Amino acid sequence: MPEPLVYLNGRRVPASQAALPIWDAGIAQGATVTEQTRTFRHRPWRLDDHLDRLFDSLRYAGIEPGLSKDQFATISSELVAHNAALIDPADDLGVLHFVTAGEYPTYAAAGRPARPGPTVCVHTFPLPFALWAKRMREGAHLITPSVRQLPPQCYDAKLKCRSRMHYYLADREARQVDPEASALLLDLDGHVTETSTANLLIVRRGALLSPTTRHTLAGISRQTVIELAAKRGIAFVERDLQLYDVLTADEAFLTSTPYCLMPATRINGVPIGDGRPGPMYHRLLGAWGEQVGLDIGRQIQEGARRQAR
Amino acid sequence: MPEPLVYLNGRRVPASQAALPIWDAGIAQGATVTEQTRTFRHRPWRLDDHLDRLFDSLRYAGIEPGLSKDQFATISSELVAHNAALIDPADDLGVLHFVTAGEYPTYAAAGRPARPGPTVCVHTFPLPFALWAKRMREGAHLITPSVRQLPPQCYDAKLKCRSRMHYYLADREARQVDPEASALLLDLDGHVTETSTANLLIVRRGALLSPTTRHTLAGISRQTVIELAAKRGIAFVERDLQLYDVLTADEAFLTSTPYCLMPATRINGVPIGDGRPGPMYHRLLGAWGEQVGLDIGRQIQEGARRQAR
Amino acid sequence: MPEPLVYLNGRRVPASQAALPIWDAGIAQGATVTEQTRTFRHRPWRLDDHLDRLFDSLRYAGIEPGLSKDQFATISSELVAHNAALIDPADDLGVLHFVTAGEYPTYAAAGRPARPGPTVCVHTFPLPFALWAKRMREGAHLITPSVRQLPPQCYDAKLKCRSRMHYYLADREARQVDPEASALLLDLDGHVTETSTANLLIVRRGALLSPTTRHTLAGISRQTVIELAAKRGIAFVERDLQLYDVLTADEAFLTSTPYCLMPATRINGVPIGDGRPGPMYHRLLGAWGEQVGLDIGRQIQEGARRQAR
Amino acid sequence: MPEPLVYLNGRRVPASQAALPIWDAGIAQGATVTEQTRTFRHRPWRLDDHLDRLFDSLRYAGIEPGLSKDQFATISSELVAHNAALIDPADDLGVLHFVTAGEYPTYAAAGRPARPGPTVCVHTFPLPFALWAKRMREGAHLITPSVRQLPPQCYDAKLKCRSRMHYYLADREARQVDPEASALLLDLDGHVTETSTANLLIVRRGALLSPTTRHTLAGISRQTVIELAAKRGIAFVERDLQLYDVLTADEAFLTSTPYCLMPATRINGVPIGDGRPGPMYHRLLGAWGEQVGLDIGRQIQEGARRQAR
Amino acid sequence: MPEPLVYLNGRRVPASQAALPIWDAGIAQGATVTEQTRTFRHRPWRLDDHLDRLFDSLRYAGIEPGLSKDQFATISSELVAHNAALIDPADDLGVLHFVTAGEYPTYAAAGRPARPGPTVCVHTFPLPFALWAKRMREGAHLITPSVRQLPPQCYDAKLKCRSRMHYYLADREARQVDPEASALLLDLDGHVTETSTANLLIVRRGALLSPTTRHTLAGISRQTVIELAAKRGIAFVERDLQLYDVLTADEAFLTSTPYCLMPATRINGVPIGDGRPGPMYHRLLGAWGEQVGLDIGRQIQEGARRQAR
Amino acid sequence: MPEPLVYLNGRRVPASQAALPIWDAGIAQGATVTEQTRTFRHRPWRLDDHLDRLFDSLRYAGIEPGLSKDQFATISSELVAHNAALIDPADDLGVLHFVTAGEYPTYAAAGRPARPGPTVCVHTFPLPFALWAKRMREGAHLITPSVRQLPPQCYDAKLKCRSRMHYYLADREARQVDPEASALLLDLDGHVTETSTANLLIVRRGALLSPTTRHTLAGISRQTVIELAAKRGIAFVERDLQLYDVLTADEAFLTSTPYCLMPATRINGVPIGDGRPGPMYHRLLGAWGEQVGLDIGRQIQEGARRQAR
Repeated sequence: MPEPLVYLNGRRVPASQAALPIWDAGIAQGATVTEQTRTFRHRPWRLDDHLDRLFDSLRYAGIEPGLSKDQFATISSELVAHNAALIDPADDLGVLHFVTAGEYPTYAAAGRPARPGPTVCVHTFPLPFALWAKRMREGAHLITPSVRQLPPQCYDAKLKCRSRMHYYLADREARQVDPEASALLLDLDGHVTETSTANLLIVRRGALLSPTTRHTLAGISRQTVIELAAKRGIAFVERDLQLYDVLTADEAFLTSTPYCLMPATRINGVPIGDGRPGPMYHRLLGAWGEQVGLDIGRQIQEGARRQAR
Repeated sequence: MPEPLVYLNGRRVPASQAALPIWDAGIAQGATVTEQTRTFRHRPWRLDDHLDRLFDSLRYAGIEPGLSKDQFATISSELVAHNAALIDPADDLGVLHFVTAGEYPTYAAAGRPARPGPTVCVHTFPLPFALWAKRMREGAHLITPSVRQLPPQCYDAKLKCRSRMHYYLADREARQVDPEASALLLDLDGHVTETSTANLLIVRRGALLSPTTRHTLAGISRQTVIELAAKRGIAFVERDLQLYDVLTADEAFLTSTPYCLMPATRINGVPIGDGRPGPMYHRLLGAWGEQVGLDIGRQIQEGARRQAR
Repeated sequence: MPEPLVYLNGRRVPASQAALPIWDAGIAQGATVTEQTRTFRHRPWRLDDHLDRLFDSLRYAGIEPGLSKDQFATISSELVAHNAALIDPADDLGVLHFVTAGEYPTYAAAGRPARPGPTVCVHTFPLPFALWAKRMREGAHLITPSVRQLPPQCYDAKLKCRSRMHYYLADREARQVDPEASALLLDLDGHVTETSTANLLIVRRGALLSPTTRHTLAGISRQTVIELAAKRGIAFVERDLQLYDVLTADEAFLTSTPYCLMPATRINGVPIGDGRPGPMYHRLLGAWGEQVGLDIGRQIQEGARRQAR
Repeated sequence: MPEPLVYLNGRRVPASQAALPIWDAGIAQGATVTEQTRTFRHRPWRLDDHLDRLFDSLRYAGIEPGLSKDQFATISSELVAHNAALIDPADDLGVLHFVTAGEYPTYAAAGRPARPGPTVCVHTFPLPFALWAKRMREGAHLITPSVRQLPPQCYDAKLKCRSRMHYYLADREARQVDPEASALLLDLDGHVTETSTANLLIVRRGALLSPTTRHTLAGISRQTVIELAAKRGIAFVERDLQLYDVLTADEAFLTSTPYCLMPATRINGVPIGDGRPGPMYHRLLGAWGEQVGLDIGRQIQEGARRQAR
Repeated sequence: MPEPLVYLNGRRVPASQAALPIWDAGIAQGATVTEQTRTFRHRPWRLDDHLDRLFDSLRYAGIEPGLSKDQFATISSELVAHNAALIDPADDLGVLHFVTAGEYPTYAAAGRPARPGPTVCVHTFPLPFALWAKRMREGAHLITPSVRQLPPQCYDAKLKCRSRMHYYLADREARQVDPEASALLLDLDGHVTETSTANLLIVRRGALLSPTTRHTLAGISRQTVIELAAKRGIAFVERDLQLYDVLTADEAFLTSTPYCLMPATRINGVPIGDGRPGPMYHRLLGAWGEQVGLDIGRQIQEGARRQAR
Repeated sequence: MPEPLVYLNGRRVPASQAALPIWDAGIAQGATVTEQTRTFRHRPWRLDDHLDRLFDSLRYAGIEPGLSKDQFATISSELVAHNAALIDPADDLGVLHFVTAGEYPTYAAAGRPARPGPTVCVHTFPLPFALWAKRMREGAHLITPSVRQLPPQCYDAKLKCRSRMHYYLADREARQVDPEASALLLDLDGHVTETSTANLLIVRRGALLSPTTRHTLAGISRQTVIELAAKRGIAFVERDLQLYDVLTADEAFLTSTPYCLMPATRINGVPIGDGRPGPMYHRLLGAWGEQVGLDIGRQIQEGARRQAR
């Protein structure tokens, strides 16, 4: 059976052979910049926006990828075209880009010819609907762990990178409370920030409230929500939020490109609102689905059943 | 020509084939715990201490490696024996251990059979003497960049891990001032911490002063210096240090297992002391060399010349 | 002469018998959630809003009161009806709700049968006009003490609770400068927050400026000012304010439900504006009085004279 | 059956009548200073040291109790003599002192004659051995919650007071992970501080390590450990500790006057050392018992069985 | 040749004699409040606004200057009239006001009769076009140094004063990277603030973004930009910005009264936008010039050539 | 009558003519490094130590004075010899050194020939005994103001410089409480640091406790106390202290070279110990006096009476 292809440093290789030498700075130092989008109906979603942000991250980190945005776009489209043909027509793909700083100098300097320049990779993966299906129906559980979000004095949360040990530790702490929980990180000042993979939005008296981008990624799914809300006259307010605001919200949900919107129905064991996915969530998920021509929730539930078979 | 071997997940593979699939959490999230030691005269240095610390890091990160300390020790010794035979008898090896959290769940959940459990790797590399030779003679240049050390609210600097984007950014900033400079990171409170690869020690009126382990790795090379100093009646004081203390020190040097001790002769463009490697540096490097039966400085200079050929 | 009644754990008791056993967590640990409103013309003011906030606080603190909001409202109204009959028709009542965590476990566990569940109390008190009359005429004096506002990392200033030692200490410090002064607490970052009992508002070029609710209580009297201002086209801006902003304001005043609005005419010994209650103050106090059918300032002055008799 | 007596504002009252009016600042504001000791064999333990600290707290808070230390000592001894006669000879008493700021001015000013001056109370309670017995045998479980220790900018952790909402919230968070867990609070900088009722000590390579008193109470039980250790030549080091230090300790235990020493065998779900009470714990508990002529561990186990009957 | 005059403590003295005794608090303690404006076509620019801010600063610092705003205005106008006659008609003047706390008490108390009261000085200087000409054409280079902006807990950045050692140190650090660079200071939380002499503005998608006045001076040139932008329908947003925002901006520029607007084309060695002065810069500089009847850019270039002769 | 001489930029000028042009960076920016010592019996005190620290400060600030330490020493001695002849034989002199960054570039660049290089000044002043006499007898009063000590992220408290607006503001705040009080600044973390002119020391159970040099100047008078204490077997402990520690100390005093040691008998209105100068103070002041052959307390009292005549 044919394998999906991965773009790696100028070559297209089968997924099972896509690997980085252990000498790579992406492994040795976490010096990796990344982006992630998905397809809807096998077409990449807001690829330009994601590549803009990838190039902002590269500029921030001072890594020169050796490819233009257009080249990334072309590679991405080609891979999607090839790899989407291998999945169920009703499924979709995640699309990942990452660039590392290349070979780590300490290993490269002695005795081996090093490959010069950064490591560039584009790959896809079937969206793991089974991972999300239950939480899409019933809502995610959030826990504020003791681990804090990285402050911008170290590096900016707007840099989408892969030095994410704090996320790993935070989620581990959250799962000790509840095996299905995700960590909602506080920053050093006690403001609510984000989970390891999603932005948080809360609803209060009909308005959407969001943490600022001081300590969170400026998510493109979040940007999508802003646009969907604006068209429908729903107020969107960005300000410092605390745990108190989440605990006393009418509704809360997470937004992340792969699953779009996921309700969050408990925080630290306490129900948010009435503890069920709320009307704003359903309204916005519906609006998003209209825009992409897909019932997003249904795709996930049905996809999960297919994957479980 | 035979290649060095790498231990990877239960197998010994030639170095050129030692690679991690792009689905690994070590690449996807920087969720990697690590240790590094070296050989002296082709024998591993304080391997037990390094493995103790590796297991402390694994405990902190909540990763279960599936191997005992003894097994790590045996594997390390076997690799060293094999790989040291491939280098010049006067050279030595760096010895690296790392353990990642295994396959990243988002990629693993859909469509591919995932390898369960963490990724475990042990490898060696010829010590890159050429990288250090000039700085060993003339001293390293330090720069305090605007990027700050990660605070323990996020994760502890004593966790030796590979989510090190801040080091990458800090060194990049330092090299803008001086292409040969290393970043000496300040913490959020303005205390001096460490460089991306070494602990700092300064000398004032005959005593050794060191930052605390609040915001720095508790280096085993630093521990070696403590022991060497204690035997010689040299006072060792651990306390909060500021840039002022480094600027007004009599001497400063870096300590890191691969090169043991490296003088630091400039900070932010200003000479430290008289701007040359000082007597305490020479005394301690000599003492270390006695202990391991090797003229450490000479090995580096001669090794660098060999490597340049 | 009949006494006012107090609701305490399901009973109505005369005020002189309203007491908590020393084993209560409200005494042992300050684990008490509270609300306070007042009557205008013997009718409770925005009781629903206060009870909403009480239930938000209970949710935040994880205390289950055993009564519904409606039950609290009924109890409050009954007490007001009974107790208001005992005061001068021109006076009004403060109305207090508090819920503690119940018996402190260490004391309860040994030897005594403990009353299970939280302690719930509703009570009233005649508004102490004599305490406010002079400051209503001439303005309060504010002092920024060295004691700082509690940060939300510990607990949120939006939680109206009774662990308020820092307020006690801050006011004590303020009164050392000026026996009539109130502390205006700064937060850890040097932003202006609130006094121990009131929100602060300042006037600059015709607009109202307010600290954010990051480090202050979201006062219902403050909310009343926002609404009164909105109806009159007065701009209301919520942002981080510093001492500089108060020192250079045109006007400043405090807002707290019991006295509604009180001018603040000095800060750290320096007059604010011309050092007298200003036009915005008079305008808003008048507007508030219109809404409740009462000359608020006159009630306080005349009440103070009655109380002094 | 005769009741234990409580000293309250100059009177001795039966425990069932010991209550504070709801107008007291101890209830209204948490403005309460406190101390706690216990008896060993029905004699108060280090009463002078506890009263010294009580008077330091009163000085810090600016509350004048109206009684001398000697008067407190006499009252305490009388109460103990009376109340100890009511318990099993093998049991012991907790002895509590607290002083509040007296009637809260807002309630006192209108219409009621207020009792002037602070509220002073001394009382005892049978030590609740049943609460501790299991943890004394098997060890306490510690959790680092997201709630942080109060910083000294607000008020000093060395002030033993009863504005402790953060402890209430922290323990609640800990119990969500594990119903038997206690919160080990981190400070704003990520240092380990204390639990809501005890100091923490850890053991590393035969030495005792303790957090500093910057963000913890200078416990008298902790002082007892320092003295016991000094006499036995056990090193005691006070320095900033992080979670890493606890996770990688050989042993850990809590110290608090009522139960003296309690092992802590898990932190965030991870065993400390081998996960069982360790040799240093047993050695120090034995030494303490020698000093007071009592097998402390046995008293607790046997007392718990009595209490369970 | 006649000299420009300086106002100093009630006298007009020739510039070469304008000096402060070394006993002055302005020299001994940096206790100096200041303002700076310039002339356009030999007329003072927004003198009233500058004097308003001077008096706000004096109020903040608690210094009573002994002159009214009107007197300052008259003195300033007289000096400008006199001194402008001495320069080329095409040049313009900087106009400076400063007030120190007067003689430093330690020196004044012994043996010498001290001049009572503060030191008041008004002076002018020919605008140093040669200093700016190249950067006006090609853009300033910005560096984020390790030195941080003073936090408002110490004193407010809105106080325009002369205790500016941190600016001196920050610029020194910046010039080590690039001799022509200016320091762009970060605050303690990693937000972008200002340079030692100018506010920063960035452009993103057609809108102007500015740091808040929490940690920056509320510049009058910045206010001018706000007004010019408002008239042209250009959005102006004030919010917390990080280095990431500057690195990924479309344009950036500095604003400071003496040169009005200066492009900033590199940050930490990376081009901002395309690395050249951008269209928003040109548009706003043109608008400013229209308002004052002067081609600001041309004046600087031509003035620089004159000064170079 | 002959005037004392001042060294200023290579010239000796009479004190009445010692002045800096208003264009100097010492006036324009507070960019001034300084030292201060005194004479005992007309001989400079620890001049070498003060000059060592001056050169450390110059190195930190990156200012090259153009004079060697020896030249400074010679100039100082000559000035002292000349100026001491003009005072009462029983009086003594303060001796000051300061170096500014020279002419401020903005003013220097246009039209005037600027003097190149830094400004160097050495001067003396009769010690103002009258300022200190009462506090030497009765003790200084300390107040912790809301203004905080500068953090080392901005510049190090160990840099003795003249950008000291925060001291000016802090002392102003302290004098509002008590006209004779001095500010004892807290740092951003709530630790006790220093006053605007002196280090603080406290006594607890026979030991001297001192704040660390993290946020305080490493005073040479403090160093003198350390040496005097060491010779007498008095323990000296440097650690983080809080207000609590000062409030509960047995004694406290200030140390500063001009008056050596001054008792501090009140803090925030509360007596320290018994509110009178204590035995440790008298013992150390006596020891200091022995070392310099002078009754320091008597000199101040008698000198004050002379100065009052």
